[in-house]
Parts: sequence; C-alpha cells; structure tokens
Amino acid sequence: MSKYWNERIHRLEPYVPGEQPKDKRYIKLNTNENPYPPSPKVLAAIKEAVNDRLRLYPDPNSDDLRAALAARFGLSSENIFIGNGSDEVLAFSFMTFFSPDRPVMFADITYSFYKVYANLCSLQPNVIPLDEEFKLPVKAFCESSGGVVIPNPNAPTGQGISIESIQKILEADPDRVVIIDEAYVNFGGESVIPLTKEYPNLLVVQTLSKFGALAGIRVGFAFGDPELIQGLNRLKNSINSYTIDCLALAGAKAAIEDDEYYRQMAERVIRTRENTVNSLAKIGFTIIPSEANFIFITHPQYDAESIFHQLRDKGILVRYFHQPRISNYLRVSIGSDEEMNAFIVAMKDLVKA
Amino acid sequence: MSKYWNERIHRLEPYVPGEQPKDKRYIKLNTNENPYPPSPKVLAAIKEAVNDRLRLYPDPNSDDLRAALAARFGLSSENIFIGNGSDEVLAFSFMTFFSPDRPVMFADITYSFYKVYANLCSLQPNVIPLDEEFKLPVKAFCESSGGVVIPNPNAPTGQGISIESIQKILEADPDRVVIIDEAYVNFGGESVIPLTKEYPNLLVVQTLSKFGALAGIRVGFAFGDPELIQGLNRLKNSINSYTIDCLALAGAKAAIEDDEYYRQMAERVIRTRENTVNSLAKIGFTIIPSEANFIFITHPQYDAESIFHQLRDKGILVRYFHQPRISNYLRVSIGSDEEMNAFIVAMKDLVKA
Repeated sequence: MSKYWNERIHRLEPYVPGEQPKDKRYIKLNTNENPYPPSPKVLAAIKEAVNDRLRLYPDPNSDDLRAALAARFGLSSENIFIGNGSDEVLAFSFMTFFSPDRPVMFADITYSFYKVYANLCSLQPNVIPLDEEFKLPVKAFCESSGGVVIPNPNAPTGQGISIESIQKILEADPDRVVIIDEAYVNFGGESVIPLTKEYPNLLVVQTLSKFGALAGIRVGFAFGDPELIQGLNRLKNSINSYTIDCLALAGAKAAIEDDEYYRQMAERVIRTRENTVNSLAKIGFTIIPSEANFIFITHPQYDAESIFHQLRDKGILVRYFHQPRISNYLRVSIGSDEEMNAFIVAMKDLVKA
Repeated sequence: MSKYWNERIHRLEPYVPGEQPKDKRYIKLNTNENPYPPSPKVLAAIKEAVNDRLRLYPDPNSDDLRAALAARFGLSSENIFIGNGSDEVLAFSFMTFFSPDRPVMFADITYSFYKVYANLCSLQPNVIPLDEEFKLPVKAFCESSGGVVIPNPNAPTGQGISIESIQKILEADPDRVVIIDEAYVNFGGESVIPLTKEYPNLLVVQTLSKFGALAGIRVGFAFGDPELIQGLNRLKNSINSYTIDCLALAGAKAAIEDDEYYRQMAERVIRTRENTVNSLAKIGFTIIPSEANFIFITHPQYDAESIFHQLRDKGILVRYFHQPRISNYLRVSIGSDEEMNAFIVAMKDLVKA
C-alpha cells in the first residue's frame, strides 16, 4: 500500500498467472500453451519483418491483419478489433461495455480474470453458480443484466456450451453485450463468429496464444458489430495508439493464412487429449468432458492439492485453484504425446495404480 | 455513438497519431522516428528469438530486461516497470497515481495524449500556460495539486527544463506524483533518473521508440521508487499479465546493452538538427531551441498550415497541430541528412527564399 496510489489501485486484486519457473526444466502442463511449434510460415514471416523498418511505428489500425481475418471469417474489417493478447481485449471490453450501475454476469467457476476486470472497472459481479456437473445454467444467464461474459469452452473445466444456448442468452436481453470468450474453441468447440452478423450485442473474443501456438507474441481478436468495435477502438486510442508491434502483426497474419497447419496440430492435441482421458479414467480419475486443450480432473481417493505438489516435485507443472467447489480438481494442459505419457506414468505412481 | 458503450466511452476524445500513409513513399518527418536503423545486435537478438519457443508465454515480469536496465542505470529491478510502449506506461501512470478529486497539472502546449488520459480517468486537468517563449512556468507548477506530468524536453516544442526546476516541483508537494516524460531526453537533454533515489514521488518515463530506433516493437519504461512501480504492476496485472512479447523483450535487452551504438546515432541526429536549424534560420524561420529529435518552427510571413499541405504535396510529411498559440508552427522530425536536405530545398522553394 502507498499514499501515492489512488483508491482504485488499493482495492485491486491482480490476476496471478500460472507460474513460468526458471529454476529447472519442467514438463509445463500449467498454462495451456500449444505443445506444437508455430507454423514455419509464421516464423519465416516474422524473421522477414526483423529489419531496419523496426525504427518506424507499426500500423496503428492493423489493417493487413484485419483484412486477413476478414477474409478468413467472411467478415468486414470493421467487424474486427486487434489487441495485445485476448486478456487486453477482454479488459478493454469490460471497460467499454459494462457500467457500475448494472451487474455483469459470469459463472462461479470460470476464467478467474473476469473477477479481476470487474474489480478494475468497479462493477458489481452477478456470479452464477454452474450446476452440479459444472454445466452452465442457461436460464439464469437469461435474466436481464448489465452484461455477460462466458468462455466457450469454459475454463478451467473445458466444457462446451451449445450455440442454441448462446442464442437464448443473446436474445434474452438485446440491450446488453454478451462476450463469448473463445480462447479454446479450436480444440473441438464451435465458434459463434457467424452469429455476430445477426446479433449486434454479441462480441466474440479469440486469441493466437493457444490454437496459434503464439503465446509469445501476444495477439488477440474481437469480432462483432462495427458499433462494438468502434467502442473498443475509442478506448484503445485513449490508452495507446500502437498496441500491436510490427513483428506480431506479421506473424499473426501468416498464422491466419496457414489455417491448414494449425488444424492438423489441433487434431493432434485432440487425439492426445482423448488418450490422456482414457488413461486417467483407468486409474480412477473423473474427467470433465473437454472441448479444450486442457482437462479438468479429480480423483475420489486422492487430494488434488497434494497431487499438484507431488507432480511439481517430479518436474511436472499443472494448475491448481484454491477455490470453493474445485479445490479437489486439477487443470492439466494437453502437451505432446511424450509429455502426457510421462504425466500418466507419474500419476500412476501417485495414485498407486 | 452506441447504446452498448458505457458513459465513459461516449465522452472519450481519442488521440490521433501522426499519419502513417500507405498511398506512396513520403519523407516521413511527422512521427519523430529515428532516421537510423536499430543496432545490428538488436536485430540479431530478435532473430534468434524467432523460434519454436514462441508457443510459450513470455516472462510476465520482464526480469532479464529489468536486470539489464538496472545495471545500465545503477538501479534495482524493483525500480523499473516495463510497458507496451511509453504511451501505455503513461496511461497506466494516470490510472494509478491520479484521482478525480484533485486536479492534475500539465502545460497548455505539451504532448497531446495527456489531455486524453485525463479524460479517460475522469480527471480535472489544471492546464498551465507556457510563457511567451514556450518556457515552463516553474512557479505555477509548484502550487499544490493532485499530480504533475511534464515532458523533458517538452513536445512539440523540443525545449528542455533544468534539473533544478524539476527538483523545485518535486519538493513543492512531496505527496503528489510528478511524472517526467523523457521520451526525447537522449537527444541533448539530461535525465532525472538518478533523482528517483532521492524523491519517492518522482516517476521517470522513457521509451525505445525514438533513441532506440524501435518504434516497431513497442517498449517503454518507468523508473521510480518501488512503491510507485508496485502500483503500476497492480494495475497492469489487473489488465494483462503478459504485455511485452518475447521478441520485444529480446530486442529491448540488446538495445539497452548497446548504448554505444545508440549514442553515436543520437550524435548524428543532433548534428543534423543543428544544420537544419541553421538552414531554416537563413530563410527566415524562427526555431524554438530544441533538445529533441525534432524542431518546432514558425515563419513570420508564411502560414504554417499552408506550408504543411504544400510539403505534403511534395511528398514530405511534417506535423501540424490545429491548436491555440501554436497554429502557426510546424513540428519537424529530424531525418537523415539526405532527407533534411530535401526538406530544406522544399522549404526554400515554398518561402521563395
């Protein structure tokens, strides 16, 4: 605490990301990174951009990247906002579309940054409990509110939500903005980007950090009606004209244009996920059905927090959330087959199976 | 305007950056970019970082880069905050240290983003007029206030302010944060980074965009007491854990470690600036004494806005501000000798000298 901070800074409770340890090499299954490298075309495009032109500012409007995304998704550039990672896009969305006078809805078990954004923006959260199977109670989300944010699939459970359910939530209150956070949608879910043409209150957020295997270059997107995109641009241009650097712009464009490569990598991740699920089920774990590049698991006889620490000692990092209802669960990112085999061997040892 | 925007977004007046035209090649003297390329060591360091590890998140705390800066400036890592360009650092500083209940002071002729930040944060600006020679009225800035932001040297005038004046302003009210924006300090000014050890209310902001010739990779810094830095981190970690990408981290570190190269380039810019000033004086221009990589000029017989348009037609971009007191001035970035010769030839033609 400091006398130099304003009132807001005092009451913030910042997000704590999954650890990025430097003490030794771990099998990192804790931050949902893609186990496969970025497309070779992406690396080539970035390398080409490493030249004397870095002395110049990037295009503040990311025109080329937006054009590539527009072509990829059958939209217009005016439907697209680019941010420095989807966390920035989400923070800007909270700052643009939600107001302290009406509560914003999100689930009790969801991406924990939403609570941080609500606090940042002095918003009253209306926290909706997931049902006993961690499914989204669609009816509760149809109550009128100041806004909604839902990840599809959900994090940290990996569970998907149907397009029909999202439509119901959109239609229940057309005057509020509904954010669908599709960070993990490309590992088995279905995107609602096409719905942005029908629903002016729908904002879809995606990222290159997972599917695009580009967590290291920080690019996120929002798709929606031009009115929503203009709002985000008003905010962005009141903070920082140039949020996306030249190298990220070049790499992101190449990634969008090499969808074939990324689809293949995602299929590999999905196959590995299914194998991992089968192996864990055999040793007594319960696994929430996942459409993401991670799984959410629990064991009736073993304590999750204790497994978390024991795995760490064995050089394997997973994510544990000290939080009501999920304190006996672990979130495990899907790594390569080799990494997941090592993980299963360790787990077999820990549960004495 | 949109029913989906909150009240704040409606009243924002976003910053408009200098144009980055794509229609043809211009001599770009409008956004204060460095005419010389980044250090070859910087380009090599970035290229080396373009590899499969881009699938992983960057270090959210920029530890290596902060260590390099700490070594360079004789500080500790805890004195250093890294942002996605110094505009982000400035925006975050406004959001962290200033409150709506007490006005924040800045000059009437200064970096125009400050007014945008004040608006973003619902702050009352206390706008202090520069004197007739565009010098900072130090006494007025010593009045008590909720905070102060001063660029040294000032933009768009290029005029410097003495360290003694900054000390007076710091001491006048130790309970408020004073931000010294040193975006251009390496072209002839003197940094107050050493003063951060004495004054816990001093925050110094720098950037790699100008001196570092790295506008394309977006890295800015703040230096100050650990309490100030912690405040900025609380805010940053409530918006986006990973604001600086792996490539920017690698390039920035290499830039900090190759100060010798950058000093030489800055000396070239300073020599070119002095030559340009002499040539313009000969054809009747008045030039504000500049310690920056740009100059602020006016001509008693010719209209600045008209010169601005005529230069554009000749393929030369400079910056014109449609603003009281400076509406007959142009801000001209210092390019290479070749670019400035072309600029002088064009100017001679325009003023019939």
